[in-house]
Amino acid sequence: MAAVTATSNTTTTTARAVGAGSPTADLAPLQIERRALGASDVRIDIKFCGICHSDIHFARGEWGEIPYPAVPGHEIAGVVAAVGSDVTGFAVGDRVGVGCMVNSCRECENCQAGNEQYCIAGNTQTYGSVDRDGTFTYGGYSDHVVVDQDFVLRIPDEIPLEEAAPLLCAGITTYSPLRHWNAGPGKQVAVVGLGGLGHMAVKFAHALGAEVTVLSQSLRKQEDGLRLGADHYYATSDDATFTALAHRFDLIINTVSAVIDMGAMLSLVKTDGALVNVGAPSEPLPVPVFPLLMQRRTFAGSGIGSIRETQEMLEFCAEHGIAADIEVISADQVNEAWERVLASDVRYRFVIDNSTLTA
Amino acid sequence: MAAVTATSNTTTTTARAVGAGSPTADLAPLQIERRALGASDVRIDIKFCGICHSDIHFARGEWGEIPYPAVPGHEIAGVVAAVGSDVTGFAVGDRVGVGCMVNSCRECENCQAGNEQYCIAGNTQTYGSVDRDGTFTYGGYSDHVVVDQDFVLRIPDEIPLEEAAPLLCAGITTYSPLRHWNAGPGKQVAVVGLGGLGHMAVKFAHALGAEVTVLSQSLRKQEDGLRLGADHYYATSDDATFTALAHRFDLIINTVSAVIDMGAMLSLVKTDGALVNVGAPSEPLPVPVFPLLMQRRTFAGSGIGSIRETQEMLEFCAEHGIAADIEVISADQVNEAWERVLASDVRYRFVIDNSTLTA
Repeated sequence: MAAVTATSNTTTTTARAVGAGSPTADLAPLQIERRALGASDVRIDIKFCGICHSDIHFARGEWGEIPYPAVPGHEIAGVVAAVGSDVTGFAVGDRVGVGCMVNSCRECENCQAGNEQYCIAGNTQTYGSVDRDGTFTYGGYSDHVVVDQDFVLRIPDEIPLEEAAPLLCAGITTYSPLRHWNAGPGKQVAVVGLGGLGHMAVKFAHALGAEVTVLSQSLRKQEDGLRLGADHYYATSDDATFTALAHRFDLIINTVSAVIDMGAMLSLVKTDGALVNVGAPSEPLPVPVFPLLMQRRTFAGSGIGSIRETQEMLEFCAEHGIAADIEVISADQVNEAWERVLASDVRYRFVIDNSTLTA
Repeated sequence: MAAVTATSNTTTTTARAVGAGSPTADLAPLQIERRALGASDVRIDIKFCGICHSDIHFARGEWGEIPYPAVPGHEIAGVVAAVGSDVTGFAVGDRVGVGCMVNSCRECENCQAGNEQYCIAGNTQTYGSVDRDGTFTYGGYSDHVVVDQDFVLRIPDEIPLEEAAPLLCAGITTYSPLRHWNAGPGKQVAVVGLGGLGHMAVKFAHALGAEVTVLSQSLRKQEDGLRLGADHYYATSDDATFTALAHRFDLIINTVSAVIDMGAMLSLVKTDGALVNVGAPSEPLPVPVFPLLMQRRTFAGSGIGSIRETQEMLEFCAEHGIAADIEVISADQVNEAWERVLASDVRYRFVIDNSTLTA
């Protein structure tokens, strides 16, 4: 990292990164500028960064036009390299993480209530946002990042940094709805899709004490699912699944971003139960209303979690020996990894070893 | 009524009715048989029956094939004409009502919990169902009906029977979700559509203490809406409505059975708020997932209410001076009334004067 030792708060720093120059370009090494260390900023030497499906949607412009180069990555784990003069909670050498957001308006009712993930003005995303100082945000596929202390998480010593990285998105995105909808002892919880998010949802739901069922397209990953903590594993390609599990679940966490048969899935939800999407399909989902009406079911969505809840999740992981199942890659393998993500060929999260960045 | 004085519990009774002989036929006078009075049955001399949009969907076979003749009507208000030997809660002359259901399995967890409207085996609908004794159910477009005492409601003396009839469907269908989702002081509640259900939703939400906004296609019924208890009235045909009311509502009750712009409507819901359908469109609603994810919003459905809650609603109406706004018609005006229902030309519920039945 070129300028990790800089202490002036007026000097930007140059970061090695890997990013996309256009919606269709392969990722390639490049350099980006990080803002000068502000009084409340923490400069983080990034050790590992998880690869999320969102990174691909974003960089390829599938969620809207973006400026290039695009440097994604919002599952950041590293070590504090420098702190601004007003930073009190972090010191050089601390093990820290950054998730999907790096700022918010701090004034709306949600920010005031500590739910900055639902900032009404829109939170500042770790990549692809304009931050409050006017700078454009670049993600964690890079060697360092500068983030306001209020959006930095502490990674407990029990969790290896590379296994902690995916907790910052895949982890909190599944932990938060499981907590909000009260997954726990006596509750029947299903997880649709056993990918990066799904495998974390299974671990959390199990650790929270719920009876856990995986609903996957096939039984291909059944052994994994049971090992991760599922009590049952069913294939959604088999119509008998929907007969066997009718009216079974208090809560279904749907991690799949594709369009699914919502009527069939809702039929598995109990009266007053919820089907909660954490996957974000780009097309609207066709939702038949009768299955909602007839059992007062709800269809909801949930996005990441607050900083407070993310810290709680990390402590929960430390306490329960939970982390992500990962495959560590070098920076020059990112394009290949993206192809494998698109093919659902990863168990269960790629994590970039950021020491291999070469730009 | 031909046989209202019969007391034998082995004799069926012949009822005058009006019904449809086919999906395309006009309604016409006809006779149907009611089952013999069972030990726990109440025979009700029907004085008034409300006309619900569901009646039309049902009789025209739009919700699936049905046997004919079809005799709809599930907003029944009348007087007890006879009671079976085990009936303890009702006596001849009592003012009573019957809503959308006349039986349920009584064994499932929902029935056991007093939520028989969500009977897992499916409750027995007032018309178009096969009852537990194997007889086919006919609705309230007739001069009398025989119903198990557990599904008969007591109509408080304060409420005229003709104004009480629509409470049994339009009333409870809106009261139940308002209560379940905690409409009350400090809450912002919107009602989409100002028809039979919508006008009751406005009255209830206002009486419960919420700040009430009507969202209607146009401002045509604005004066009515404000008179009924709304604090605000907006046209959904005006794009400015969606800017002005962004993120406003804790709860939106959607009474519209047509497909609406769900993304636009969800944008009006607060974080953790709910959009609840009581309208039942026959086509799936296209629901964009991002508006759910970004503010942890829920889209839900709610169907009628339990018998216990329906009785509570009737008492609430008596206490707050609430009833339906109605237009009383004679039985020979039913076909015309249906056309006006389809054209949304009713303020706000047609009620048949069942003394005019001629079959």
